[in-house]
Amino acid sequence: MPRNTQILLASRPQGEATVDNFQLVVTETPPLQEGQVLVRHHYLSLDPYMRGRMNAGKSYAPPQPLGEVMIGATVGEVVESRHPDYAVGDQVVGMGGWQEYSVVDARQPGVLRKVDTRQVPLSYYLGAVGMPGVTAWYGLVKIIAPKAGDTLVVSAATGAVGSAFAALAKARGCRVVGIAGGSEKCRYALDELGFDACIDYKLHQGDTQSLARVLQQDCPQGIDGYFENVGGWIMDAVMLRMNAFSRMALCGMIAGYDGQPLPMSYPALILTQRMRLEGFIVSEHMDVWPQALQELTGLVASGKLRPRETIAQGLAAAPEAFLGMLKGRNLGKQLVKLI
Amino acid sequence: MPRNTQILLASRPQGEATVDNFQLVVTETPPLQEGQVLVRHHYLSLDPYMRGRMNAGKSYAPPQPLGEVMIGATVGEVVESRHPDYAVGDQVVGMGGWQEYSVVDARQPGVLRKVDTRQVPLSYYLGAVGMPGVTAWYGLVKIIAPKAGDTLVVSAATGAVGSAFAALAKARGCRVVGIAGGSEKCRYALDELGFDACIDYKLHQGDTQSLARVLQQDCPQGIDGYFENVGGWIMDAVMLRMNAFSRMALCGMIAGYDGQPLPMSYPALILTQRMRLEGFIVSEHMDVWPQALQELTGLVASGKLRPRETIAQGLAAAPEAFLGMLKGRNLGKQLVKLI
Repeated sequence: MPRNTQILLASRPQGEATVDNFQLVVTETPPLQEGQVLVRHHYLSLDPYMRGRMNAGKSYAPPQPLGEVMIGATVGEVVESRHPDYAVGDQVVGMGGWQEYSVVDARQPGVLRKVDTRQVPLSYYLGAVGMPGVTAWYGLVKIIAPKAGDTLVVSAATGAVGSAFAALAKARGCRVVGIAGGSEKCRYALDELGFDACIDYKLHQGDTQSLARVLQQDCPQGIDGYFENVGGWIMDAVMLRMNAFSRMALCGMIAGYDGQPLPMSYPALILTQRMRLEGFIVSEHMDVWPQALQELTGLVASGKLRPRETIAQGLAAAPEAFLGMLKGRNLGKQLVKLI
Repeated sequence: MPRNTQILLASRPQGEATVDNFQLVVTETPPLQEGQVLVRHHYLSLDPYMRGRMNAGKSYAPPQPLGEVMIGATVGEVVESRHPDYAVGDQVVGMGGWQEYSVVDARQPGVLRKVDTRQVPLSYYLGAVGMPGVTAWYGLVKIIAPKAGDTLVVSAATGAVGSAFAALAKARGCRVVGIAGGSEKCRYALDELGFDACIDYKLHQGDTQSLARVLQQDCPQGIDGYFENVGGWIMDAVMLRMNAFSRMALCGMIAGYDGQPLPMSYPALILTQRMRLEGFIVSEHMDVWPQALQELTGLVASGKLRPRETIAQGLAAAPEAFLGMLKGRNLGKQLVKLI
């Protein structure tokens, strides 16, 4: 019964989230029952959707309960097993939460997935070859559905979703333009992620028209598809450059997670440009995961997708790392190393 | 060479359109050349899209040129023909514009369509069995794509589009809730158009939350599909009641035609409710017209679609009738009788 450090949601944010919303506790893992598996987590994934779950309001998922371990994806290793399909030493991905160990009822379908680390490092199963990668794949393939030569734009371009999006879009012959915060991220997008152009939104802070002008320069044929991660004035600027019959996949609106509703300034463009907008939650489309993961694995194995990671050390560092990610302080996928 | 009265666009509106933006002139129709047909118009259609064309800004269509005859659909009768397919007395629908006669080059495909008035009155080809009816059909069938039992909402419910929408949706086993301005229109929607409920938005003028509460009462299972004709606070209220995986067809945003951009207040709902929004222009989908017109003809012939008309007398009355329609003063399809 190993000692288990956990982080609970202690209180709901009033506006911006703070470290005081979290509480670190130390417990012991309970003895395993028949069918259960004990997983030691190597990495915890920190993702923007978690901020939404911290709010009380009804959304597509129930809110994270107060006083319980924060939700989160983890990769780790089976250290004890009472299920015939899992052996000690198996590497697995699951929703272990913000803690060092989790006890998993492995009889439930889909709660654990064994992974192969010969071609793909273990941590990538939380990013490029995990939920964020499949998110990029679904938005690109199933909603934007581009043809070669299309111009596509993605916000939060250097994050786990954005970097996978770029590799997937380049593989389809598209022009890909990123929007990211800061010159370092934009350099990384151009040098390592294969973006054709990357716009530093911090140079246009809050000025929709100014950002729209730069988008026009970098998208001389207009924009055929947009993968939306942030919402707000950045979405407004992109909409001003969307072509007739363009498609927008909405997957995150980080800018609105702190409570105040963020309006869309020019919805009449949906009509005049005959646009299609579609929101989606990747966990509702499990049928596409095998196909998406196969393509993402291939892109990583061939070096066409080279994601970076920002890694915080130890569970106690998770709240600060999470809040920093919401402000864009990370480069690439934000992880917490737990071992 | 009959005398022809015409109305030209004299100036572009500054904000709200006024009668001074129009100019009435009297000319003579030119002699016919080979392949041309002279049509005497019986009815001119007045439609909201015309307000958009009066603005200078680029939209999906070029603006109405200044000093030229206002664009508009017409039904009428061939009074002279130099084309073998058209004979004097043929009844035709076309884009004759705001004038009593038009000279049409009948060799261009699609500019004139002969119609049959045995089952459908001539004027209906401008409404229920014309562009507005096909607009309702496309948004319902191709975008909202409802299944029996779905709850659907349409704004501008008693107009030419809304009334056709109701009949088409009822034929598919849906619950249909209208939004209209005034108790007379709502009574008409319930008594004659087959709506299951109709909400008078004037009782909630500008109060999104108040309208959303009434929508909840009339849509106890939430809203699966919305046909948007107006935009602004009414769209906001409907969005607050949209179900997961709901669809919104955007076809008009009358409220925004006077210039000021109308924001959408809660775009994050597109994500949290995994909605699909799609704008469309029915003239870009000519392939569906035969199928749509066939169904609409059947609904009229069987009495299941009983559209009303508001008819202004004489071309000189067109500007006033048009401005009144933009303010919702008409009941049903707004026409101008020219003969």
